Amino acid sequence: MGELRKQILVNQWIITGTQEPWEFLESLNPKENKQWKQCPFCPGNESLTSPEIFALRDPTLPPNSSKWEVRVVPEKKAVLKKEGELSRCGIGMHDMMNTIGTHELIIETPKHINNISEEEHLQIKKVFTVYQRRIKELGDDQRFRYPLIFKNQKEKSPYKMGHTYSQLIAFPITPKKIKDELINAKNYYEYKERCIFCDILQQEQNDEKRVILKNNHFIAFVPFASRFVFETWILPLEHQSDFALESEEKLLDLAEIFKKILTKIEKIIGNRPLSYALYTQPYLQHRKEEYWKTIHQDYHWHLEIYPLSNRLLGLEVSSGSYIEPILPEKAAQLLREV
Amino acid sequence: MGELRKQILVNQWIITGTQEPWEFLESLNPKENKQWKQCPFCPGNESLTSPEIFALRDPTLPPNSSKWEVRVVPEKKAVLKKEGELSRCGIGMHDMMNTIGTHELIIETPKHINNISEEEHLQIKKVFTVYQRRIKELGDDQRFRYPLIFKNQKEKSPYKMGHTYSQLIAFPITPKKIKDELINAKNYYEYKERCIFCDILQQEQNDEKRVILKNNHFIAFVPFASRFVFETWILPLEHQSDFALESEEKLLDLAEIFKKILTKIEKIIGNRPLSYALYTQPYLQHRKEEYWKTIHQDYHWHLEIYPLSNRLLGLEVSSGSYIEPILPEKAAQLLREV
Repeated sequence: MGELRKQILVNQWIITGTQEPWEFLESLNPKENKQWKQCPFCPGNESLTSPEIFALRDPTLPPNSSKWEVRVVPEKKAVLKKEGELSRCGIGMHDMMNTIGTHELIIETPKHINNISEEEHLQIKKVFTVYQRRIKELGDDQRFRYPLIFKNQKEKSPYKMGHTYSQLIAFPITPKKIKDELINAKNYYEYKERCIFCDILQQEQNDEKRVILKNNHFIAFVPFASRFVFETWILPLEHQSDFALESEEKLLDLAEIFKKILTKIEKIIGNRPLSYALYTQPYLQHRKEEYWKTIHQDYHWHLEIYPLSNRLLGLEVSSGSYIEPILPEKAAQLLREV
Repeated sequence: MGELRKQILVNQWIITGTQEPWEFLESLNPKENKQWKQCPFCPGNESLTSPEIFALRDPTLPPNSSKWEVRVVPEKKAVLKKEGELSRCGIGMHDMMNTIGTHELIIETPKHINNISEEEHLQIKKVFTVYQRRIKELGDDQRFRYPLIFKNQKEKSPYKMGHTYSQLIAFPITPKKIKDELINAKNYYEYKERCIFCDILQQEQNDEKRVILKNNHFIAFVPFASRFVFETWILPLEHQSDFALESEEKLLDLAEIFKKILTKIEKIIGNRPLSYALYTQPYLQHRKEEYWKTIHQDYHWHLEIYPLSNRLLGLEVSSGSYIEPILPEKAAQLLREV
């Protein structure tokens, strides 16, 4: 039903046609808050979601049974669909594709909690393990180009039950922000013969003033030019382009620093909206062996956390320039001290 | 006080340091809605704004007197400042500039109305005349690269008094969205030897189904891949890269179609947030004569209207891909029929 269309003026793919006009207009004026009598994400209510794609549980237990630790289910209102052949076509001067892809929800804990930061870091590590597994499995599908895992905390959604989850969309294209990053990272590598992210890491460690936290394998800092107030990036200290290849030991370290950073941000902004995303290298099946080698050198997976991601207004939307009122050094100081 | 910093990963300039942390944090929890006893934009209250930059009024009357038709004043909380030399510098691997530029408010009517669509189209034409004048005047300043005029209807702001105004920011850089557009338009022109916008116009007129309205000089349509529901572009039918060079006659036609489109959109979305922006060619003083000739051929000024521009969420922010639920053809049909 939906379509992927390219905005040729800025080379940006748009997903459209996911709702009928009346559905959308109705959603602007919800008659009542759709209430689930039971949380569909809580153990025991597995039948309220679509049948699971994967779950972390004792392998002797059956799928969709209640003793799971992390559970992956299809998004019922998926914006991209798994079934069908990828078809690209031109409509006059324009470019179109059908909406092939996947849209999955990763239920991060059996506990009915709002924010994953309330969980133990051992549980958060399990979520990362499941991310790795889904990224790897979807990579076998030759139609997919990029797996994006992101969080949209406090969005209005029929699932908004106060039960924390993340989303995974596997795209048949590389989304614009990621393509921009890949191209810039590649150009930088060609020019300097160094990974741009490794250089950023080096500079942040020298400058110190934007660093919030470090542990054995990770660093968390406010980027030099952040788009959002209290925006924080978490990067592995050792170069690695592929998140799915990180060791168990590193995931544990990642969970630890991630929990601390989220807790700090929430101490400042409270229960306001927050997004984050995991950026790893694109699927490379479409690419030549040499290109793989380059991208491996010039990309560096990382997490970007966007607090108050709902504050975009006329200027940001129309210019692509952002105003981030607090100087990154001052934001980092607040986050260090909180 | 503020700084312009470049996010080197995506070549995006960010304005930062415009507020102290406590100011920003306080603005998250406003103790009371800051109330103006009188609207600072209404005639008679001229002393409540900074002294005016320009006003459309009988030239025999003094500045800042009350008989004006359109009035331009400095934004009190300007994000870019007019005073000073432009200075660029590197901070290690990063790039920085001071926040040179202008930030002006264009008070569109003496009437205390919320939406400019409520005005006569003759008054709206005067607003466009003032836009032209400010774009031309600021173009004499060699420090400026790009004048962006935009509207942020219903934003939270100390000026939110229900009195319609637009904003003008003259940047010392070209903002990312505009640079992307310019580069793509240039590439297209080199490949096809035709203006990409002229080709879009041609295709929209052939396809018809995304067109909402036409008059002698303008066409309004929902773009093939829109980012926002009911997004509408207004383009001059005749090629022109520079908005400031359009004739009085054309501005009148523009005002007419613009008023009709805004009225239609508001009939559907009501008083919800809406942004729009005017895109004209960049200031060209920095550029070689040949480049001027090219850009003149390959750019085409236009207006983009973004209804419900506040709906950006985790996916849009993290991927730069957008979901626009209603198919553009269906959105256009609704707008035609309303």
